[in-house]
Amino acid sequence: MESAIPSHLTTARSRHRRVGDDYHPPYPSFVARHKPAVTNVVMAYFGVQYRGDAPPPAARALAEIAARFGGPDGPSHWDRAHYIDQAGFSNVVSVAYWDDVARFDKWFAPAREAWTGGGGDGIGRFIEVLRPSVSRYETLFSSLGRPEGVAVIAEGMSGEVQEHAYWGGMRDRIPLSQTSEMAPRGKPSLVRDGARLRVIANDNLCLIRSGQDWSDTEASERKMYLEDVEPVLREGMDFLRDEGAAIGCYANRYMRVLGADGVPTEKSYGQSWWRSLSALERWAESHPTHVRIFGAAMKYLSTLGPSAKLRLYHEVTVAAADEQFFEYQSCHPRTGMLAAIETVTA
Amino acid sequence: MESAIPSHLTTARSRHRRVGDDYHPPYPSFVARHKPAVTNVVMAYFGVQYRGDAPPPAARALAEIAARFGGPDGPSHWDRAHYIDQAGFSNVVSVAYWDDVARFDKWFAPAREAWTGGGGDGIGRFIEVLRPSVSRYETLFSSLGRPEGVAVIAEGMSGEVQEHAYWGGMRDRIPLSQTSEMAPRGKPSLVRDGARLRVIANDNLCLIRSGQDWSDTEASERKMYLEDVEPVLREGMDFLRDEGAAIGCYANRYMRVLGADGVPTEKSYGQSWWRSLSALERWAESHPTHVRIFGAAMKYLSTLGPSAKLRLYHEVTVAAADEQFFEYQSCHPRTGMLAAIETVTA
Repeated sequence: MESAIPSHLTTARSRHRRVGDDYHPPYPSFVARHKPAVTNVVMAYFGVQYRGDAPPPAARALAEIAARFGGPDGPSHWDRAHYIDQAGFSNVVSVAYWDDVARFDKWFAPAREAWTGGGGDGIGRFIEVLRPSVSRYETLFSSLGRPEGVAVIAEGMSGEVQEHAYWGGMRDRIPLSQTSEMAPRGKPSLVRDGARLRVIANDNLCLIRSGQDWSDTEASERKMYLEDVEPVLREGMDFLRDEGAAIGCYANRYMRVLGADGVPTEKSYGQSWWRSLSALERWAESHPTHVRIFGAAMKYLSTLGPSAKLRLYHEVTVAAADEQFFEYQSCHPRTGMLAAIETVTA
Repeated sequence: MESAIPSHLTTARSRHRRVGDDYHPPYPSFVARHKPAVTNVVMAYFGVQYRGDAPPPAARALAEIAARFGGPDGPSHWDRAHYIDQAGFSNVVSVAYWDDVARFDKWFAPAREAWTGGGGDGIGRFIEVLRPSVSRYETLFSSLGRPEGVAVIAEGMSGEVQEHAYWGGMRDRIPLSQTSEMAPRGKPSLVRDGARLRVIANDNLCLIRSGQDWSDTEASERKMYLEDVEPVLREGMDFLRDEGAAIGCYANRYMRVLGADGVPTEKSYGQSWWRSLSALERWAESHPTHVRIFGAAMKYLSTLGPSAKLRLYHEVTVAAADEQFFEYQSCHPRTGMLAAIETVTA
């Protein structure tokens, strides 16, 4: 049993963990471990948005960004997913991860210009980037052997960690929680730059990518996931998408991961932007929509026990004001963090 | 909105609350308020135990303790409840509350001698007493106007308090949480004193009395409580009674409150002894049996909203080693804290 906080990020505490040193989680979980030399990671979401079937400019944009990802100073890992949003638009989001901000910066300037600097081709495009200090994010995996998201670029995975399977574990896994409440400060505002709309969000904005992979499940387990768990999960995701603003969720996307061939895989993830970690905690712990998700997952896991083949993971970041970048071009006004502006000006 | 911790018990913190100052609970709750002069309260459980119909000595014992309660230095409030335990014994428990330890001490010496000093009349008797500092316990009520348990002897009730409706609120309402983790220390041991068995429990032992009153509910709400909520609650209570030891619950009694005439009322409470507040927290937050109770209650309350007539309350104490007294005479070995001895010697 080890702490989710790596030893090189352990500091003198001014704030306590929610559990005592004698706490033993009831089942194992694991976290991604970076080399100590890594100070920041970059999580960059590049979206294209269109109605109906993908028009040729969308396919071109996806091919171009894939080519850039493969070019000099490109990300160590990227993946792509699709969802249809509340306005009926298709969104294809390519998510790329770096563990070197200088490398990302060199790569990003021309990529950004190419992505949101043009326009007029009938599709929307957006860029959402966090570049958090490693003290400002955490991961959690239900099993080893198949890292996802930012964990793919980590050096490896931990052994069993202590800080999980209780409410507050998410916070306790973030190294900065040793000394900071991570309270939000400021309100999102909009900067118009020609056709580009940039959102200046708030300090300690929170991002979660929370995924499930049912590709290894068989027979009764697959049926149980698809019939008992997934519909409850979808209901919660829809709630956050449509009614999340009132509880501090600026935006939520329930994404289906696409394979290299563009075909949907048996992986999905929810990606949501929150005003604060606290707002995410409160929803997760007490809102009926997530209590039902939790109940369905508990029933699933207690029925299957260690034989469960479903893989679960998440990554949660609390980003400082200067670790964020949001830019939208020709997107509808409820896209991503643009919805936060509607929220605050409503 | 006020803090559950009264101003005269507010101290410089070395430990933070789990929520920020900007937290707003989604529905109102209230706590009992004592006069600042009250330093300790006493919660004393006097039980009689027998199989089958109540034998004459049981009725005599109940009449005698009621007479003592009404005598000099008696409690400011008491109530009585019944349940049938896991061994098939009936237990009638009379619970009395004082807010003056000196007065209790004067009252207790002869009452104890009369209660557990005799024997040989074919019934079991037990005494379980906590006399916590007011910094070591908290209460919570879903509505005003009908205090229960220790709240009956309080000066009154608070306005709406901030620290509730999130996991960790229970701890945050206990004044001592401002400076202490309240971790358990020591293991329960047994002292044999003739026919009397005394349990020396552990420091920071935890007691919860958690009650429900459905006497005001009507028609569909009553049906919903009795058919959708109560069976789930009972299942959780049975789990704690039968399998609680493994998760730190020494004993649980799901009691039905009796009226002055000895007839069951439409009030019940669960009363359980825990190794620590943390153990109670972990069960409440994540065990399937309580997650189902929570889910049923959430569904009930979200369906009914403010029109709900069901009344809920609890009182939770974390007692120091020198604030506890447990004595059993002719009881079966799974009675109350005797079960803790079985647990530690098993």
